[in-house]
Amino acid sequence: MTLEQTIDELAKRAKVASATLMALSTETKNNILSTMADLLTLQKLHLQAENNKDLEAGSEKGLSPAMLDRLRLSDEVIDSMIVALRELCMLPDPVGKIENFVKRPNGLQVGRMRVPLGVIAMIYESRPNVTVDAAALCLKTGNAIILRGGSEAIHSNLALATILQQALTEHNIDKHAVQVIPVTDRLAINHLLTLEEDIDLVIPRGGEGLIRFVSETSRIPVLKHYKGVCHIYVDKDADLDKAIPLVINSKTHRPGVCNALEGLLIHNDVAETFLPAVVKALTACGVELRGCARSVKIVDQIKTAGEEDWGTEFLDLILCVKVVQDLEEAKQYIQKYGSQHTESIITENYSTAQRFIAEVDASAVMVNASTRFNDGGQLGLGAEIGISTTKLHAYGPMGLEELTTRKFVVFGQGQIRE
Amino acid sequence: MTLEQTIDELAKRAKVASATLMALSTETKNNILSTMADLLTLQKLHLQAENNKDLEAGSEKGLSPAMLDRLRLSDEVIDSMIVALRELCMLPDPVGKIENFVKRPNGLQVGRMRVPLGVIAMIYESRPNVTVDAAALCLKTGNAIILRGGSEAIHSNLALATILQQALTEHNIDKHAVQVIPVTDRLAINHLLTLEEDIDLVIPRGGEGLIRFVSETSRIPVLKHYKGVCHIYVDKDADLDKAIPLVINSKTHRPGVCNALEGLLIHNDVAETFLPAVVKALTACGVELRGCARSVKIVDQIKTAGEEDWGTEFLDLILCVKVVQDLEEAKQYIQKYGSQHTESIITENYSTAQRFIAEVDASAVMVNASTRFNDGGQLGLGAEIGISTTKLHAYGPMGLEELTTRKFVVFGQGQIRE
Repeated sequence: MTLEQTIDELAKRAKVASATLMALSTETKNNILSTMADLLTLQKLHLQAENNKDLEAGSEKGLSPAMLDRLRLSDEVIDSMIVALRELCMLPDPVGKIENFVKRPNGLQVGRMRVPLGVIAMIYESRPNVTVDAAALCLKTGNAIILRGGSEAIHSNLALATILQQALTEHNIDKHAVQVIPVTDRLAINHLLTLEEDIDLVIPRGGEGLIRFVSETSRIPVLKHYKGVCHIYVDKDADLDKAIPLVINSKTHRPGVCNALEGLLIHNDVAETFLPAVVKALTACGVELRGCARSVKIVDQIKTAGEEDWGTEFLDLILCVKVVQDLEEAKQYIQKYGSQHTESIITENYSTAQRFIAEVDASAVMVNASTRFNDGGQLGLGAEIGISTTKLHAYGPMGLEELTTRKFVVFGQGQIRE
Repeated sequence: MTLEQTIDELAKRAKVASATLMALSTETKNNILSTMADLLTLQKLHLQAENNKDLEAGSEKGLSPAMLDRLRLSDEVIDSMIVALRELCMLPDPVGKIENFVKRPNGLQVGRMRVPLGVIAMIYESRPNVTVDAAALCLKTGNAIILRGGSEAIHSNLALATILQQALTEHNIDKHAVQVIPVTDRLAINHLLTLEEDIDLVIPRGGEGLIRFVSETSRIPVLKHYKGVCHIYVDKDADLDKAIPLVINSKTHRPGVCNALEGLLIHNDVAETFLPAVVKALTACGVELRGCARSVKIVDQIKTAGEEDWGTEFLDLILCVKVVQDLEEAKQYIQKYGSQHTESIITENYSTAQRFIAEVDASAVMVNASTRFNDGGQLGLGAEIGISTTKLHAYGPMGLEELTTRKFVVFGQGQIRE
């Protein structure tokens, strides 16, 4: 079989499997998830042996210690997968839920029933725990999944897939509901992304390069976010005592992730009071500051920012600072340099908060809260398969509900259209 | 300016306009819609003069009488546009509505606020009334719109756009919220469909050729349906007296539209009773029947169907008939030949109805109802901008809500992430 035929076959099998998944009861799906957790526990040593092949190959290829660490299926990582599977059993199943049920004047009863999307392809880098998380979320929502992890994790991902498929088989469910692409050739992705007849959605997760490649190549709809350039705007009516811990938390809690703070906007009226205090707190945490001319005048430790600094996702202990004249200037800055990810205002002014919430365009807009809260778990979705900063279908973290769509269901008693 | 520059400029202006639209009050939006209706009334004669240019050019080019009829802005057509605008004022504005509002354990209040998508491009054929309908729906939902109608309607569409823009200007709103592409060169569409930075969604409406072209060319998300191959399945437990009017209505009420019936599936147990009766009623309405071997044996008037007939969207008084052994075979037939548009079962059996509703994959699944009800107005959406048979974002008719997305809004009191 050629590479194309292998991928075609895999996609067709996923589509066939998705038809059976659609009709599974919540109980059956939860039972499969439990079996997956049991099998991961039982086969931990085998899994780690397969993972070691990837780690050894990675070492030889000269992967960085950080990369190797992300690749490692340690006891803790496997345990966290198992916990995630058990927690997923407890979450409500969105499939079959009927919303907006109404009775029309002619007596027709019309509702919108949540149903699976069908077949989802997930393209991601490195971390093999995504394999289990994504497969479990898709199973819970009745979707078949095609997984394509990084080539450096191929042994780990195939071993994980075998375990997940074994759980499906134990419950007499078509094992092709979960498939890992067995070849590492990049051309496999190119071909996969043309199969719009069989695949309903592609979710890429990884660096901006991967995501741009998927987005530009795919004929299938893609849900994605390129980067997180998140801001906090400290308003003139901010409670400055609240503001400092919020800025510190947003910037330093985990600087390498997409909901970390990259830009701090400060209203001119409070700049002289607030800037020295916040800079002191930030530098104490090792944060380097790059600011506008006005901010540099107020605080020595701030270096003058270059044009390339504004709107940069540093993913590091670096923060841009800009003094603005008012909410309007803050909004314009965010529109120009933000990435529609997370934007937070610190204010005690009711009307200013209302305007910020209504008028700022981002997947999450916040008042007096850390940007770090833009996360499926933190926002109450229970689990997250990714985050979208495009507006179609999902905007922000995507949980179980975002892995479904709604079809119209119509209950009639013989009505015809006049 | 080159063609590309013209289109770039137009898209950029739409994006700028969309930022102001986002924050408009419902009252302002309704006032603009009213003014649009007033101006259409006042400028009817001018509009019809411009429309005449298109009609004359169309005649010269040899357009069919049916095509010319679709192109004509008769008094009735203009009046119906005016009525649609006034009715749209009465519909609820989805923008700003907060759904799923919850309080998290840490006290954060989290909701999902409906917001406009941004900029929508509409690419359509012939009928100039789409220009007004689509622009009005987008305005009501705070979206800017770029319109590209058929080249044969260019004078009509530009005249309509001028009127709509005049209404915007009277209310001091950026007139670029509604723009008609002023050139008829097809390359304009090719370039438009690459502008993913400025345009959030493309909706093509027209023949399958146009829709495939847009879908294959676009880098921007597309909501579409290619065709409507709709079925009715007459179950063994059907009330056959109900079934006949439902089949007749679905097939003959308006055979040329996408929710018209194209295939009739009949359970073997009732085929000998039902087929002669339904064929008699259908042939009395001038419907030609093409069926499976079993159906041909039962009723003489049915011609043997060729393989090319199954799954064909006839858009005419032709109907395929197939006798099936059970619900399972009906489902498989629908999965193979249907277009995920509209599928209806006729049955009095509760469990069979439940299974059909849950297990058939289409944008609308119905029990004891005419397929003709798969329509935004009929299903209670109030207005419709199109219909989607792809599952991302919208599945089925798209009304006002489908022209919005939901962002997360978070109201905190200084919470940081531990």
